[in-house]
Amino acid sequence: MLIEKTVREFLATLASPDPTPGGGSAAALASAMGASLLAMVAGLPKTRTGSDEDRAALDAAAAVLADARHRLADAVDADTASYDRVVSAYRLPKASEADRAARKAAIQGALRGATDVPLTVMQLSALALAQAPVVARHGHKAALSDAGVAVALLRAGLSGAGLNVEINLGGLTDEVYVGTARAESARLMTEGERDRQAADAALAEG
Amino acid sequence: MLIEKTVREFLATLASPDPTPGGGSAAALASAMGASLLAMVAGLPKTRTGSDEDRAALDAAAAVLADARHRLADAVDADTASYDRVVSAYRLPKASEADRAARKAAIQGALRGATDVPLTVMQLSALALAQAPVVARHGHKAALSDAGVAVALLRAGLSGAGLNVEINLGGLTDEVYVGTARAESARLMTEGERDRQAADAALAEG
Repeated sequence: MLIEKTVREFLATLASPDPTPGGGSAAALASAMGASLLAMVAGLPKTRTGSDEDRAALDAAAAVLADARHRLADAVDADTASYDRVVSAYRLPKASEADRAARKAAIQGALRGATDVPLTVMQLSALALAQAPVVARHGHKAALSDAGVAVALLRAGLSGAGLNVEINLGGLTDEVYVGTARAESARLMTEGERDRQAADAALAEG
Repeated sequence: MLIEKTVREFLATLASPDPTPGGGSAAALASAMGASLLAMVAGLPKTRTGSDEDRAALDAAAAVLADARHRLADAVDADTASYDRVVSAYRLPKASEADRAARKAAIQGALRGATDVPLTVMQLSALALAQAPVVARHGHKAALSDAGVAVALLRAGLSGAGLNVEINLGGLTDEVYVGTARAESARLMTEGERDRQAADAALAEG
């Protein structure tokens, strides 16, 4: 598993010319880092003012972020596994008509899986970004640069996963699925960008 | 060392309420992933058109990116080490006047180190981003979404490191150093943003 490799080994596998792991796994890890950093700020004993309101808001955010960061970490491997299935499907035999039909169905199924994973990464990134304005407003001031880095990472993870959704949709023939997934991706980008701007505005106020 | 931890362990240390590792190490890792992904695309046997010009351009970019990715990986640990030195300096005794003077000098030295590391991350991120338009124009089309994710990660790493430069400059009293570092940070942000836009434009053309 990729997330059981050392960070150094993971970087080496990203840099190697093998097709996986690629951008999808890197985007998932960027968002997992972003959710983890926000969880750190939300989990600090010190809050913005020390009020019960701060503590309650941060505790609620921390619970969402803990779940999101674990699921994003899982997506690092899920993305690579889904892409490996696409590659395997393209390598299926295509000698007979029956072969070609089976191969085509396998490719479609694999591409759908390879779209669903980054779409989930987008959802989890948007969920984490939705907590960012809360963490920015209620979190301890000394940790606000960590929250700022987290927001930048989640933005990169969200848009990077979006690129992977788009590229896999390009090979899919089920127009209903393609339309639904594209609309969901666009919605998540808009929602995530709105929350990113709200978080950056709160962080800029300090 | 952080980069000898597994990816899962690294995420857990980011999420823990301990002061390190924090956003600086995460920003360095984001840029290391971005440089690694660009190195992967530049190192693919297939290029955009198969021309000698493509190969020469990608080989030159790959050499720069290989160096940048190793130095960015080193910065993951260097950032945390530099911040640990800041924390240690703040904990020095301040009973006597001599103690206080020594503590003050130690804090200033440590903060300068904690500024230099993210400034180097900014330089390396900008250097990698400068290769991105080359990779986007000469790299194999099938890998362009990987290049797009790389650009998003380098942008996050650059701006995240910039936040860490800014926060550490806030505690420094040497106005010449502060002015020089702030100008260098602003220059790298502008340069990196220009190259990011050029890369995204080339990627959008496909």
